[in-house]
Amino acid sequence: MISPKEAIEKILQRGKLAEVKAVDLDDALGYVLAEDVVSNVNVPPFNNSAMDGFAMHSTDLRKTGPLKIIGEVQAGQEAKILVKEGAVISIMTGAALPEKTNAVIPVENVEASESEITVKKAVEKGANIRLAGEDIKKGSTIIKVGTVLKPISLGLAASVGVAEIKVYEKPKVAIVVTGDELIKPGQDLKPGQIYESNSFFLNGLLKKLEAGVAYSAKAKDTLEDTIDKLSMALSKADVVLTTGGISVGKYDFVAKALEKIGAKQIFDKVSQKPGKPLSLFTYDDKTVVSLPGNPVAVGICFELYVRPLLLKMAGRKDIFRKSFKAIAEKPIRKKKGRTNYIRVRVDRKKNILYVQTTGAQGSGVLTSMLADGIVELPADVDEIKQGQELEVVSLDDDYK
Amino acid sequence: MISPKEAIEKILQRGKLAEVKAVDLDDALGYVLAEDVVSNVNVPPFNNSAMDGFAMHSTDLRKTGPLKIIGEVQAGQEAKILVKEGAVISIMTGAALPEKTNAVIPVENVEASESEITVKKAVEKGANIRLAGEDIKKGSTIIKVGTVLKPISLGLAASVGVAEIKVYEKPKVAIVVTGDELIKPGQDLKPGQIYESNSFFLNGLLKKLEAGVAYSAKAKDTLEDTIDKLSMALSKADVVLTTGGISVGKYDFVAKALEKIGAKQIFDKVSQKPGKPLSLFTYDDKTVVSLPGNPVAVGICFELYVRPLLLKMAGRKDIFRKSFKAIAEKPIRKKKGRTNYIRVRVDRKKNILYVQTTGAQGSGVLTSMLADGIVELPADVDEIKQGQELEVVSLDDDYK
Repeated sequence: MISPKEAIEKILQRGKLAEVKAVDLDDALGYVLAEDVVSNVNVPPFNNSAMDGFAMHSTDLRKTGPLKIIGEVQAGQEAKILVKEGAVISIMTGAALPEKTNAVIPVENVEASESEITVKKAVEKGANIRLAGEDIKKGSTIIKVGTVLKPISLGLAASVGVAEIKVYEKPKVAIVVTGDELIKPGQDLKPGQIYESNSFFLNGLLKKLEAGVAYSAKAKDTLEDTIDKLSMALSKADVVLTTGGISVGKYDFVAKALEKIGAKQIFDKVSQKPGKPLSLFTYDDKTVVSLPGNPVAVGICFELYVRPLLLKMAGRKDIFRKSFKAIAEKPIRKKKGRTNYIRVRVDRKKNILYVQTTGAQGSGVLTSMLADGIVELPADVDEIKQGQELEVVSLDDDYK
Repeated sequence: MISPKEAIEKILQRGKLAEVKAVDLDDALGYVLAEDVVSNVNVPPFNNSAMDGFAMHSTDLRKTGPLKIIGEVQAGQEAKILVKEGAVISIMTGAALPEKTNAVIPVENVEASESEITVKKAVEKGANIRLAGEDIKKGSTIIKVGTVLKPISLGLAASVGVAEIKVYEKPKVAIVVTGDELIKPGQDLKPGQIYESNSFFLNGLLKKLEAGVAYSAKAKDTLEDTIDKLSMALSKADVVLTTGGISVGKYDFVAKALEKIGAKQIFDKVSQKPGKPLSLFTYDDKTVVSLPGNPVAVGICFELYVRPLLLKMAGRKDIFRKSFKAIAEKPIRKKKGRTNYIRVRVDRKKNILYVQTTGAQGSGVLTSMLADGIVELPADVDEIKQGQELEVVSLDDDYK
């Protein structure tokens, strides 16, 4: 039996970076950038008008007119017209500024006929002009390797003309649940049966991480079927998650099946509660994380071990959830021996954060996962005193 | 010209709840629940074993044995065997507890042969038993109307046998960008052209909200094509977002096209910077939010107006982003007249939060959107003094 600290180390050693692939900008959200995005252009690429109005010759800024309208530049057109003193060009927002002009007077500031304008309110030099390179200079790095791609990243890459970017592939994940007592929701329970919920919980957790579920199956409690389902999972995914079937029971076939397949067991138990049966196997470059069958243990082990592994493989640097400090509202007792992971609610009172447990912490009590955070209570501790400061791993908004 | 406060009121009046639909649990993530999920079963549905071991008769708990193994209950089976004094039943984790037994002694606590066990370490009454209804009582509400469905919600619903749930549909959104100067990223720029980035930015923002983009197009700067693209968008989506083409320019066709189609204009300008040309139109039960063409104004208007609208339509109660207080690190100046929305970076120094602007705040400067938050500077303010406390609307991790 190894400690949780050793377990996470061994699991993260399996966190090899996924392959680099090129993706279209429209599909890039949430991936980690594998190569700097560098701008090949100035943004904007040319001096242009920030308003609908008239481009003014540099010598005419103090004049009230009338000034002759000698042409028009639309957005998307080249500004070929030569503007002379005493003349203006009708110009649209975003259109290129003609040579010799150095301000745009907005439509609202003039009286305009078909052929000329009279200035009601003059503008300063440079007014309503966006300068070439004002937003982004040619050659500058727009987005750095390692950045998680956000909506704004896609906008930025597009604005410098980049249509395809290099990202790290996300690991493909398979789910194999075990247990003959499990039936699908929507059916009637027969004696001894319970509803299978782990695959739904895991599917949701994986979707939130934007990890692709490549295969999902339920194995019967026989060696043959467990081998079949695990072989299929290993052929389709980089990381296989199993639930249940990993204890010492007569009908626990996960370890036996993986041995038959030729997988190597890295560890078979972790000194923690919940989640003691957690096991790790490797098969070539594939990883199998065998989670216990209890839904609470599934949730805790996913948060502690699976989430960081998958994020690391996807190229993320921020692989652990944030944590914060809070005060124990009531005493908390546990047995010495194993590290406990308790689920807590956090309340702010007079600007101080207090924690209390989410109620009964049995690993069958799935409602105990409706939590704001997780608190680790070390193996050698048997009591947390009221008022003691605790480190809370934030579950963000994902669990409430 | 209306105020930002009036604008958000008028936009949210369009936030009619979407239809209720039934979805499979596997597709329910991120939806808002439209009908309470009530449990029709106890969870667990029967008393069962929390360990692999032997179910002990209630009178045998102090005995060391040998005790005769008279049968086995597997997980998923009915516990039909009658256990008598002096006998035990081999039992698997999750298997139903036979009548007359009231504790499970784990495999590790006994010496076992094929036919009998000797107790090495006794257990207490109730040990290693999960009681019927321990997690969830039959008839109790598991998830309340209005809850945003999380991974744990899916697990909970599955655990009470619910396979399909009622949720509010998410609004379908269409994007129509305008501007003949815009070309797709990946091509070479000709004089006067710039890269189109708004559709990529909006696509990303909508994906983050898990809103479905039903249609996306670029309209040419002609009345006919603008009518075509907007008609198509209105036929496919509940909310149409347009960018550009909404000012007073000769080639701005969005308002003219919508008038031809028969849409009604609700407002045509908002007293804010950036985002002044923001306009709202209605067409039957459809809503058109016309955003300015500048990417920064697109981002700001999306955050201020579109995001809350779409979340409200999807049944969310928490439609506005969270805000927090921070101190101005340097003075900030603006012109009186319009409400300004400045993008800020937030830094913590000695446990105090400080804000500064993200640099030049011109509405063409898309990099100014790489921000931690947005600060609203009221219309009648022209200076924020160094050290002044400001309210920062958090952009979470979506923009950096």
